Amino acid sequence: MKLENFNNNLARTSSFHMETVNGIAKTTAATSLHTYAAMYREELVQRILPFWLNHSIDKEHGGFFTCLDRDGSVYDTDKFMWLQGRQVWCFSYMYHHLEQRPEWLEIAMNGARFMEKHGRDAEGNWYFSLTADGKPLVQPYNIFSDCFATMAFAALDKAAPNEHYRNIATQTFENILRRRHNWKGIYNKAYPGTRPLRNFSLPMILCNLSLELEHVIGSERVDAFIPEVIDEVMNVFYQPSLGLILENVNEDGSFADCFEGRLLNPGHAIEAMWFIMDLGKRLGDEQLIRKACNIMLDTIEYGWDKQYGGIFYFLDAHGHPPQQLEWDQKLWWVHVEALVALAKGHTLTGDERCAAWFQKIHDYTWKHFRDAEYGEWFGYLNRRGEVLLPLKGGKWKGCFHIPRSLYQVWKTLEKPVHH
Amino acid sequence: MKLENFNNNLARTSSFHMETVNGIAKTTAATSLHTYAAMYREELVQRILPFWLNHSIDKEHGGFFTCLDRDGSVYDTDKFMWLQGRQVWCFSYMYHHLEQRPEWLEIAMNGARFMEKHGRDAEGNWYFSLTADGKPLVQPYNIFSDCFATMAFAALDKAAPNEHYRNIATQTFENILRRRHNWKGIYNKAYPGTRPLRNFSLPMILCNLSLELEHVIGSERVDAFIPEVIDEVMNVFYQPSLGLILENVNEDGSFADCFEGRLLNPGHAIEAMWFIMDLGKRLGDEQLIRKACNIMLDTIEYGWDKQYGGIFYFLDAHGHPPQQLEWDQKLWWVHVEALVALAKGHTLTGDERCAAWFQKIHDYTWKHFRDAEYGEWFGYLNRRGEVLLPLKGGKWKGCFHIPRSLYQVWKTLEKPVHH
Repeated sequence: MKLENFNNNLARTSSFHMETVNGIAKTTAATSLHTYAAMYREELVQRILPFWLNHSIDKEHGGFFTCLDRDGSVYDTDKFMWLQGRQVWCFSYMYHHLEQRPEWLEIAMNGARFMEKHGRDAEGNWYFSLTADGKPLVQPYNIFSDCFATMAFAALDKAAPNEHYRNIATQTFENILRRRHNWKGIYNKAYPGTRPLRNFSLPMILCNLSLELEHVIGSERVDAFIPEVIDEVMNVFYQPSLGLILENVNEDGSFADCFEGRLLNPGHAIEAMWFIMDLGKRLGDEQLIRKACNIMLDTIEYGWDKQYGGIFYFLDAHGHPPQQLEWDQKLWWVHVEALVALAKGHTLTGDERCAAWFQKIHDYTWKHFRDAEYGEWFGYLNRRGEVLLPLKGGKWKGCFHIPRSLYQVWKTLEKPVHH
Repeated sequence: MKLENFNNNLARTSSFHMETVNGIAKTTAATSLHTYAAMYREELVQRILPFWLNHSIDKEHGGFFTCLDRDGSVYDTDKFMWLQGRQVWCFSYMYHHLEQRPEWLEIAMNGARFMEKHGRDAEGNWYFSLTADGKPLVQPYNIFSDCFATMAFAALDKAAPNEHYRNIATQTFENILRRRHNWKGIYNKAYPGTRPLRNFSLPMILCNLSLELEHVIGSERVDAFIPEVIDEVMNVFYQPSLGLILENVNEDGSFADCFEGRLLNPGHAIEAMWFIMDLGKRLGDEQLIRKACNIMLDTIEYGWDKQYGGIFYFLDAHGHPPQQLEWDQKLWWVHVEALVALAKGHTLTGDERCAAWFQKIHDYTWKHFRDAEYGEWFGYLNRRGEVLLPLKGGKWKGCFHIPRSLYQVWKTLEKPVHH
């Protein structure tokens, strides 16, 4: 698709859905989101992957620069392990699932070599960040570096099967499970015993990681693992009285009336719900899928900024001021993960609210986050949807949510579904 | 002064200076800021101190609630040691310097009793936060809890001399000096040796703390201490090539080209410059005062938001995107500390740029931060100067910068000065 056609298509779909979205009314005829599929593929292949291919590769030391300005120029050379792992995952995944382009595999291997050589301490924990030439900068205080390293090496093993990659993935996964209940370790600043809280992030990521690792750890182990993580997400962190998912709860699963306990991160909950829908699909559990879809819709409804549009980054469950000063900002990953969740929700359940919300959030997202001039999308908007930071990548934004979501939406909507 | 008069006065001073501010032109006749003094006193005594007196006292457990909503209602009961210490300091200071109101001393003592009973671990380090009833919540990872505890007990000792208070102040101060060069201790996430950085915060606070402690540690010790902290601030963190103060530098004082090294916190630098002017006044060092005043003016000029007004929270010295998502917000303490620095700068040097900037920032601050309906001021505005969080106090905002600054500006401008 040429860019002009693409823009015409964007305009056409926009005007098409303006009637249906109003008040999120359910339409009587089944809505098809199928017409969106091609533009998601086009954006991924023509504008997103080339941006990272052209600008992020460190040809001298290996690995990736992720601090990229609007036009792709490197403004900082530190290497953050979350993002090294995520980019290895991304190009391995695209090579395996989309097209076997040799340069995509080479990018993934370039990152994996750097990670393997420099990324771990003596106990096999992954550092948080390194200098450009691989010296450790920030200690392995953050277990999500390990989660994304596991995903990276498991995906690379799918793209180019190799026992060596599988071993790194397996060892890191076992290490995550070992550290699971005390993953902050010596870096934990909470005084022991006063207010022990359980955090949503790790169970949430394990929902996705378990499926990513199936070829490495085996289906039996995944089968045994899945009910446990589903239970944590849907029965511990989801609070029926609120109708929402909390980021932190007391050890017994009850509500903790403090900043951490009141914290809502709508994007987090929405993303988790498509992980759960994926698990529900694997289990053939339609009730689980419907429950996840409903929670996702309730979260979007709650998190949507009625004044300026977009989904808030953080909210307080009691409506108090959140401690996060960035609470009202609109972040890229929140919106593209919502599009994935809505596309999956609509395809799997036929719920028309998913179609209406998809169209509304598609419009917001493509209008505000997409950069028509350069590839890759903006990451951080202020409440009004204006660009807050012109960067395309930084300490936390890399080659991950945008390409993964474009791929997921494309593939989910590729085949017309009639409910 | 009645509120109507007060507002008239505000309007009058606003229109008065509109000609002089334009382009920060130097006026030929010496400007007097003396007319502002009364409104700063009035606001402090009538609207700020009563707010904390009425809403923050925990009558059950002692200590202070600081998470106060717009109207003063308590929305969270955790107790943050920075703010416990700062409020003890504030009411002790006002009792000693402003008026010996028994209820002010009782508030200070109420906070001190709570701090003394619950605030320290076995090594005498001050916790970061406690539950309402005094159980430790967050470990003593942050040495600024200790700094404000020292200030609190030293000020209380001035208000109600007592060896016991002096001992706590002295012991805590010695502990700060002992931990000074490795104050993050076990909570330091930086990998040792790769990129050791020196941070501006502690030397900056020690500039102020040394004077606050003079009656406790003695003048000789302060005399010996002052040149060292002045040297750190003015010769290490101030970078002549940039004309600005950096938050972090390499161990040898050179520029570190990374997120931390490029970080500018204009409010921090501006506040430090009035600490330096106070030290310059004590030393009778006019050259030091002029240098501090010039750095302060350059920082305000650099940090001022030419589009929407107000001083940015964070900037990158190379103009790259800062990692702090809240970079463009306008914070209360930045603006009121700038008013103190400008009042002192004008009074001490007669530099007319100080008067013009004082008038401009006074207008911005009183218009956007002041809450005409309830006491105490808002703390967090978005870039446009709209209220971002309606709170009057929280985890980081308590009874400190607003009352201290109102007092400092009032006292600095109280006597008409003719240069």
